[in-house]
Amino acid sequence: MKTTRIAMLGLGTVGKSVVEILAHQNTVVIDKILVRNPHRHTIDLPLTTNVWEIIEDPDIDIVVEVMGGVDPAYEYVTSALHSGKSVVTANKEVVARYGQELMELARQNRQGFLFEASVGGGIPILDALNWHLRTTVIHAIEGVINGTTNFILHEMEQGMEFSHALKRAQALGFAEQDPSADVGGWDSARKLSILSGLAFNSWIHAEEEQVSGITHVKSSHLHRLRDMGFGLRLVARAEAQASSLGFVVAPTVYPLGHRYLQLSGSQNAVGIFSQAGTIWFEGPGAGGIATATSIVSDIQRIRFSLPDREPLRFDNVPVADIDDAYLIFREEARQPMPEVPDSLQKGPGYLLSSYPLPPDKGLVQYRFRAK
Amino acid sequence: MKTTRIAMLGLGTVGKSVVEILAHQNTVVIDKILVRNPHRHTIDLPLTTNVWEIIEDPDIDIVVEVMGGVDPAYEYVTSALHSGKSVVTANKEVVARYGQELMELARQNRQGFLFEASVGGGIPILDALNWHLRTTVIHAIEGVINGTTNFILHEMEQGMEFSHALKRAQALGFAEQDPSADVGGWDSARKLSILSGLAFNSWIHAEEEQVSGITHVKSSHLHRLRDMGFGLRLVARAEAQASSLGFVVAPTVYPLGHRYLQLSGSQNAVGIFSQAGTIWFEGPGAGGIATATSIVSDIQRIRFSLPDREPLRFDNVPVADIDDAYLIFREEARQPMPEVPDSLQKGPGYLLSSYPLPPDKGLVQYRFRAK
Repeated sequence: MKTTRIAMLGLGTVGKSVVEILAHQNTVVIDKILVRNPHRHTIDLPLTTNVWEIIEDPDIDIVVEVMGGVDPAYEYVTSALHSGKSVVTANKEVVARYGQELMELARQNRQGFLFEASVGGGIPILDALNWHLRTTVIHAIEGVINGTTNFILHEMEQGMEFSHALKRAQALGFAEQDPSADVGGWDSARKLSILSGLAFNSWIHAEEEQVSGITHVKSSHLHRLRDMGFGLRLVARAEAQASSLGFVVAPTVYPLGHRYLQLSGSQNAVGIFSQAGTIWFEGPGAGGIATATSIVSDIQRIRFSLPDREPLRFDNVPVADIDDAYLIFREEARQPMPEVPDSLQKGPGYLLSSYPLPPDKGLVQYRFRAK
Repeated sequence: MKTTRIAMLGLGTVGKSVVEILAHQNTVVIDKILVRNPHRHTIDLPLTTNVWEIIEDPDIDIVVEVMGGVDPAYEYVTSALHSGKSVVTANKEVVARYGQELMELARQNRQGFLFEASVGGGIPILDALNWHLRTTVIHAIEGVINGTTNFILHEMEQGMEFSHALKRAQALGFAEQDPSADVGGWDSARKLSILSGLAFNSWIHAEEEQVSGITHVKSSHLHRLRDMGFGLRLVARAEAQASSLGFVVAPTVYPLGHRYLQLSGSQNAVGIFSQAGTIWFEGPGAGGIATATSIVSDIQRIRFSLPDREPLRFDNVPVADIDDAYLIFREEARQPMPEVPDSLQKGPGYLLSSYPLPPDKGLVQYRFRAK
């Protein structure tokens, strides 16, 4: 098998881990790396500040994009595909917004376009959607897919107020200087767009009314919930309805002991509810080596010319509005609806609904929204 | 893409579910099905009692073996590979015993030999080992991979003695008339052989001293454990050591709330501990549609000519004996070893060891063995 030549766009934490893993491979070689300032790196590989040296190099087979952000990453990825190169990316902003278009562009150019690392870091969740469940009807997909909000909510449960917990997360490197994508729910929404795009072949551009973050959650609310035997996490869920798709990111309440409340650090959890039963994946949602493992796995798949997922599901359904998005849980319930306890209704000052989780008989989930 | 023609060996629960799923596909066609008694089936597909009609039919691309047992399944699978057909099987006995040989035979004949359904039913765990973690160093793999013992232990926790719980499991179809493979730990050991074969490229033929079942567990033990805040499940674990492989199937004690104690019905859980962090998979370990989903996924992979895993790990290491197998947990511990509580040591009458789980800081696992 011939040597595969790759180029990287970006050399941050994830990029360095990709270099580290590929150093042990003799079938994949890194030819060039695009960086902003070559003098800041001590790496023994050819660096360039000119992306066209990569795009126009006919020897490069795969471009690995780990620079992040939409501009200029989207333009570079598009140019690489147009030039007949395959692309592997960890860029959730680009995939959530342009994933469908880029998959089509890759098909037209007979190239691979893979993005396992864009959701759930090192968890092979997109692969399960693309391959294992390729011919299986999926009912719903949900998960805790943002580590920053997990960290902040955990700190708030220990008594910190939101603003202090956020500052601590920033000081420790768990949150960015502009934290709005994480705490506002946008990061989760982008990842959910990618998951539901693959699961339902329906690419959602999440709009504001479908996404609630955790900025309105108060430490006192979490304490009162805990006293009543509940905890709260930011959960993203997409669910097939008769003729549309429910799409919601919201703070959600679970009984203590629920798997979401056990997640520590940057661990993520994603559940796929399908004709074949419920499969849960838990693993590192971030981190250099974990994310790089997904990228290297995608490179291997392209080396062996894996095709894209066939569009087997319903096409381009309209997105339910926010009220529907909450109501799907009522409509889906196959058991009598339990009453929401008065204490919760009047308690933390949030609007609540509840539904019994069909796959876990007897367990009731309380869905929760900032007023 | 050309139509793929398959033949099936066997038409039980899993076989019928494969037929059901493929009925919706027009790119994969079932040409023939080997059955013992054609008059017992009402299915509208060509049945045969002569396996050579399948092996010698040059139009058949893939043979799907869902008959179970070693004899004659092993001979049929070997003949199919020799005849230049790919094979997909759910047969854990055949794969555990002959997997390495059959993978080599498939390679020689340039055919696919895939067996996702043989471990963890509908969970894409072998795919994660074959693809996602293809170039990642795996430290250990462990799990609860036998549903029958889960059911029996759950009933025993409610007060039933082992023999009654077993009879109930048989009456409900959760256990076979000869239950020794399940309750003796052999079913788990075979599945662990397959997992460690792929994870470490080292195919273990589990011998008696490495496998403990649950036949010695008493309901009163489980009650005393529960009073002390623990539960027990049959756990299989393989772990890389410096120059060998630890391989153990044993009843193991966990703090209440641990994921293994939450598994209901035929749900399995498998954890992979690797350089890229810890990934947990939970899903249906049995059931027609779930298992058939894995089979159909393997058929799709062969259609698209996926290659086998490259042997990247250490080769044919000697297997540690039973004492080593227990001791690996002590050697691996990166934190000071906690004391085993006196109450447990003297309690249920089992030999215990303990170690702190490195990936889940602060949680101590108690390993447990029938005297």
